[in-house]
Amino acid sequence: MSAIRVPVVEKIMSANDRMAQENRNLLDDHHVFSINIMASPGAGKTSFILQTIKHLTNEMKIGVIEGDTAPVTIDADKVIKAGMPAVQINTGGDCHLEAAMLSDGLKQMPLEGLDVLIVENVGNLICPAAWALGTHINLLVASVPEGDDKPYKYPNIYRGLNVLIINKTDLTPYVEYDLDYFRKGVEMLNPGLITFPLSCRTGEGVDAWVDWLRTQVKQYRQG
Amino acid sequence: MSAIRVPVVEKIMSANDRMAQENRNLLDDHHVFSINIMASPGAGKTSFILQTIKHLTNEMKIGVIEGDTAPVTIDADKVIKAGMPAVQINTGGDCHLEAAMLSDGLKQMPLEGLDVLIVENVGNLICPAAWALGTHINLLVASVPEGDDKPYKYPNIYRGLNVLIINKTDLTPYVEYDLDYFRKGVEMLNPGLITFPLSCRTGEGVDAWVDWLRTQVKQYRQG
Repeated sequence: MSAIRVPVVEKIMSANDRMAQENRNLLDDHHVFSINIMASPGAGKTSFILQTIKHLTNEMKIGVIEGDTAPVTIDADKVIKAGMPAVQINTGGDCHLEAAMLSDGLKQMPLEGLDVLIVENVGNLICPAAWALGTHINLLVASVPEGDDKPYKYPNIYRGLNVLIINKTDLTPYVEYDLDYFRKGVEMLNPGLITFPLSCRTGEGVDAWVDWLRTQVKQYRQG
Repeated sequence: MSAIRVPVVEKIMSANDRMAQENRNLLDDHHVFSINIMASPGAGKTSFILQTIKHLTNEMKIGVIEGDTAPVTIDADKVIKAGMPAVQINTGGDCHLEAAMLSDGLKQMPLEGLDVLIVENVGNLICPAAWALGTHINLLVASVPEGDDKPYKYPNIYRGLNVLIINKTDLTPYVEYDLDYFRKGVEMLNPGLITFPLSCRTGEGVDAWVDWLRTQVKQYRQG
């Protein structure tokens, strides 16, 4: 049985990877720097996107593709209200975005004139880690009230990251959270991972992230 | 292609349902009332289990089967430290528990003399909803800092619940959370759902949940 099943799985995975490469080529053709944002439900992905837009609204055009498991446009509506283009992808109950879904979303997104494309993945710390989308970086929004043991419990998603955000630092005084223990777990899985602790509610720490993103976009354009 | 694929999916689903029924029969044979606890990562499933154990430690023997995606025994160790039997199931990266995994776990759990079995599912608001385990009730631990829009975004998991816990109520003053909006979303999906707002950190509200559980266990035993 396994001799039959394994090649099928490989075929599906490489089809996703091929589609991810096509997405990347399309984004590069339009000089659009792209970010795949993953997180647990309620860690603050949308608030993080809105803070990023707020800080860069006069400098950059930022498009957002919203992945949701249900046909609700709560997040996309917030992005449009903030003055940026948004496209919603409804996964129909599926627990992650795949490259083909992003490809469909990209067809509806005006890439001309866009500086940055943000993809808000489905809220899930497990499944999105296994599916490349073709974006330039993978970013995770962790949050303080989720607890300091998450890298130990969900290691796969931490291994594939380029940037880590620790959101809701304003709640630190009210919860039990050992930042050193959290960081030790991250360091084991992804040594030297670039990390920005911040609060989307108070705005504290957001500048450092935005400065880093600004530099990344500049370097990307210079090729 | 679909004519070939659909029957395969149906076969897998009904195999899970059959295994779930076997789990239920085994639990009923031993008069063990069982709860499948689901939640987003970091909503406080383990803290909720530990509070439940603490309140009932002199009345009931409570076994816990811990589902984790990684081979870490952080949660199982806490249960054992609290004086109750625990078994860990490592899903090997999978995003949910299936009935067959619970069946394996039950083989390692001493059911004789047990009053309640708690199954801590993998932290995920999507995939666990689709897999029956055979437990008597499905319970979700939502948490205040996750936000009030979760029922709208993850409707499937709310539809299948018998009990809802709203944890971390002590954080309400420090976050934006509209309880009425949250409850309205729940009511649309699961009218009249039994709900207990509480804080595992301060202990506030835990008594009401424990009283309800005590009654359920009593009624279950009376048949």
